[in-house]
Amino acid sequence: MRAIIQRVTKASVTVGEEQVSSIGRGICVLLGISVDDTQRDADYIVRKILNLRLFEDENGRAWAKSVMERDFEVLCVSQFTLQCILKGNKPDFHSAMPAELAQPFYNSILESMRSAYKPELIKDGKFGARMQVNIQNDGPVTVELTSPAGPTDPKQLLKLEKQQQRKEKTRSKGPSESGREKGSLRSRQDPSASSGAEGDVSSDREP
Amino acid sequence: MRAIIQRVTKASVTVGEEQVSSIGRGICVLLGISVDDTQRDADYIVRKILNLRLFEDENGRAWAKSVMERDFEVLCVSQFTLQCILKGNKPDFHSAMPAELAQPFYNSILESMRSAYKPELIKDGKFGARMQVNIQNDGPVTVELTSPAGPTDPKQLLKLEKQQQRKEKTRSKGPSESGREKGSLRSRQDPSASSGAEGDVSSDREP
Repeated sequence: MRAIIQRVTKASVTVGEEQVSSIGRGICVLLGISVDDTQRDADYIVRKILNLRLFEDENGRAWAKSVMERDFEVLCVSQFTLQCILKGNKPDFHSAMPAELAQPFYNSILESMRSAYKPELIKDGKFGARMQVNIQNDGPVTVELTSPAGPTDPKQLLKLEKQQQRKEKTRSKGPSESGREKGSLRSRQDPSASSGAEGDVSSDREP
Repeated sequence: MRAIIQRVTKASVTVGEEQVSSIGRGICVLLGISVDDTQRDADYIVRKILNLRLFEDENGRAWAKSVMERDFEVLCVSQFTLQCILKGNKPDFHSAMPAELAQPFYNSILESMRSAYKPELIKDGKFGARMQVNIQNDGPVTVELTSPAGPTDPKQLLKLEKQQQRKEKTRSKGPSESGREKGSLRSRQDPSASSGAEGDVSSDREP
């Protein structure tokens, strides 16, 4: 699951001539669900979206407060194009979760956010519709989140790698060693490595 | 280097009360340069930004044309917060290239885009300023690019892994095998794994 979070002064969604949603200060979240995402990914993303410290505190200290701590709003819009694999210059969306599965999953993610925060401060786009999403990016401040945390956090990767090296040193080398090691390295790459295994033709799915 | 590309109906940048830039149809690019980025990363990102097929063709066929092929505009804004590492819920920006190095590099990237396309169609924000970036995301369509191509493309990872496995099968197992294998796996993780090795305190850098 990938989320692009933009800190906003205001944001809104229109479909055709109709404005379907709007917020004032807060964050606009574009959310891309992959075929491999599970509840665990959703839980991670929801927690990070709501707790990420993107705002100043009362004394103007930067990166001090989350959207919840400031009582700000969230506009969340489903965005399958974030699950894009490039085939040359053509985007391919086979690793995005198909709409019929993604829609209920996406709705459950919105519900999780509403339960964890104030339901009236979580706004939505219109799933599957052609939208104009008006974003007044404040700063700008844009952060990309990928779930789960492990493989996208270089620090944690480094830490895991060092732990692994220490283990190797203290352990006697057996024939199973290289196999275990390979598995552990591969598992850290999994979230991206496995999501591309679905198909090999470009998707003509519309935004 | 990481770029968030949003397809837009229009976009603009204001600093204080002054509008410093605006475009009509095209793409808004938020660009985050890491401490490890080189000219190779810049070349990749510029090529992809300009050639990515995010637009319909004349017959309404989706994902058919690039911003250049449609003669549309590009608004590019520097965005160091894309080089964010989470420490719990606090963003840390030590893997972003420091402003004094990032600014000339960023300017050279803009120049590359202008040389490769039409200079008058490439617009800019104001480096380092507190900006309001107004983005009318059309679709929405948002794509994340990370340079270089290899390690972020699951297909390519899978292909490399299969090649590796074939090599392993055809090769006699020697004591150096596990070492070479480990090295090759690690090199694919490098672009993200190495960028976090700089510091361990949170940055108070402002947007």
